[in-house]
Amino acid sequence: MRNIKLTIEYDGTNYSGWQIQKNAITIQQVLEEALEKLIGNKVALIGSSRTDAKVHARGMAANFKTCCTIPVEKFPAAINSFLPDDIVVLDAKEVSEGFHSRYSCTGKRYTYRILNRRIPSALLRNYTAFVPLPLDFEEMVKAEECFIGVHDFSAFMASGSSVKTTVRNIRRLDIYKDGDIITIDIEADGFLYNMVRIIAGTLIDVGRGRKNPDEIADIIAGRDRSRAGKTAPPQGLCLEEVYY
Amino acid sequence: MRNIKLTIEYDGTNYSGWQIQKNAITIQQVLEEALEKLIGNKVALIGSSRTDAKVHARGMAANFKTCCTIPVEKFPAAINSFLPDDIVVLDAKEVSEGFHSRYSCTGKRYTYRILNRRIPSALLRNYTAFVPLPLDFEEMVKAEECFIGVHDFSAFMASGSSVKTTVRNIRRLDIYKDGDIITIDIEADGFLYNMVRIIAGTLIDVGRGRKNPDEIADIIAGRDRSRAGKTAPPQGLCLEEVYY
Repeated sequence: MRNIKLTIEYDGTNYSGWQIQKNAITIQQVLEEALEKLIGNKVALIGSSRTDAKVHARGMAANFKTCCTIPVEKFPAAINSFLPDDIVVLDAKEVSEGFHSRYSCTGKRYTYRILNRRIPSALLRNYTAFVPLPLDFEEMVKAEECFIGVHDFSAFMASGSSVKTTVRNIRRLDIYKDGDIITIDIEADGFLYNMVRIIAGTLIDVGRGRKNPDEIADIIAGRDRSRAGKTAPPQGLCLEEVYY
Repeated sequence: MRNIKLTIEYDGTNYSGWQIQKNAITIQQVLEEALEKLIGNKVALIGSSRTDAKVHARGMAANFKTCCTIPVEKFPAAINSFLPDDIVVLDAKEVSEGFHSRYSCTGKRYTYRILNRRIPSALLRNYTAFVPLPLDFEEMVKAEECFIGVHDFSAFMASGSSVKTTVRNIRRLDIYKDGDIITIDIEADGFLYNMVRIIAGTLIDVGRGRKNPDEIADIIAGRDRSRAGKTAPPQGLCLEEVYY
């Protein structure tokens, strides 16, 4: 059996997230159906991440095993011809038998984009979180370094999630501004469920002056979900890269 | 009667352009319906430009006359509450009785965005023209200055259009590149029908080596539509600003 790794870009606006579920259209399902049409038999696609409804990806990774003999370099164009135009396979490569998109992953990078102006945007409505109240960008930048490093991030995990360990290493967190768009660019060895969106919600609180950058260390140490900010809306989030 | 000027952002993806027509949903129609709901009677909205289906705007201008007494600063939020989220009124101001969005206009600025990479983009599919063959950006930049100035642009007008004069003054044309996106940024006193899209199609020909930058002056002088490039697809086009 060959093991094929795909890199996938998608616009999550019209999907109920990555993972297959009943009575809702998901990205994994649409990809598996396209693969079945291309290859002629069912395949099980393993994704690196279970993105939520309306969340986007510029570099989702997924792999599947197959006996098909299509040359790997022909794969992207072949599979794209069976896909709607809001899901695009950017790259395919053959990987070793033991490769697993989720377990082999060594890190991920996400961006979270905030539109900070008084009036919403028609063109960016599906790709940014809209925050009409003024955000103090300098204060948000001061909070960057508080998140970086190895911490127990249980305060930044959706309540009710179960996971072996809530310790993660945030390797990099940069916040930058371009006109009225503030982007949070964050890389870690892995993320807890809703972690980026809760960090974004907490940084929005810092920008609005409702939290002080100095409080972040305490909020992390307290491991209490209720002390962190709200879960920021999904459309601002994009999975940029998955590292192996 | 008050004369109110609106500045409007819209995502043209799901509309058959600006101008009202039978059996198709247009931006003008949706705005007029929203205004009628807000004000209580029909209004005639005059747009500065008749953008085509799938073309976007970040700064369309339009005006209408009304007896309504809503304070002008309350207008954007009030009208936006009656609009779908892909059409947003950014600003409203009261203008003199003689102001006319089309006739008073002194210039316009458009951008045309090209995605130049081998594989299409899920996230940019509605906001860029996809060109998979390599474009020579330096050659395209060489062609910039050939367009600038006062010329008879009849070679760059959709055939069959009727207009008093085909002379226009391109005041500025800049081409820049950011990753795999090439943007044509163009300002003129006015544009002929499809002029920006035909200039974009001609610049794509230059980038592909099918036309030489030196030929542009000749193509303009020849006033022959068939010698210019194809009309590039609508989704790359965005009306950025209208000047008065």
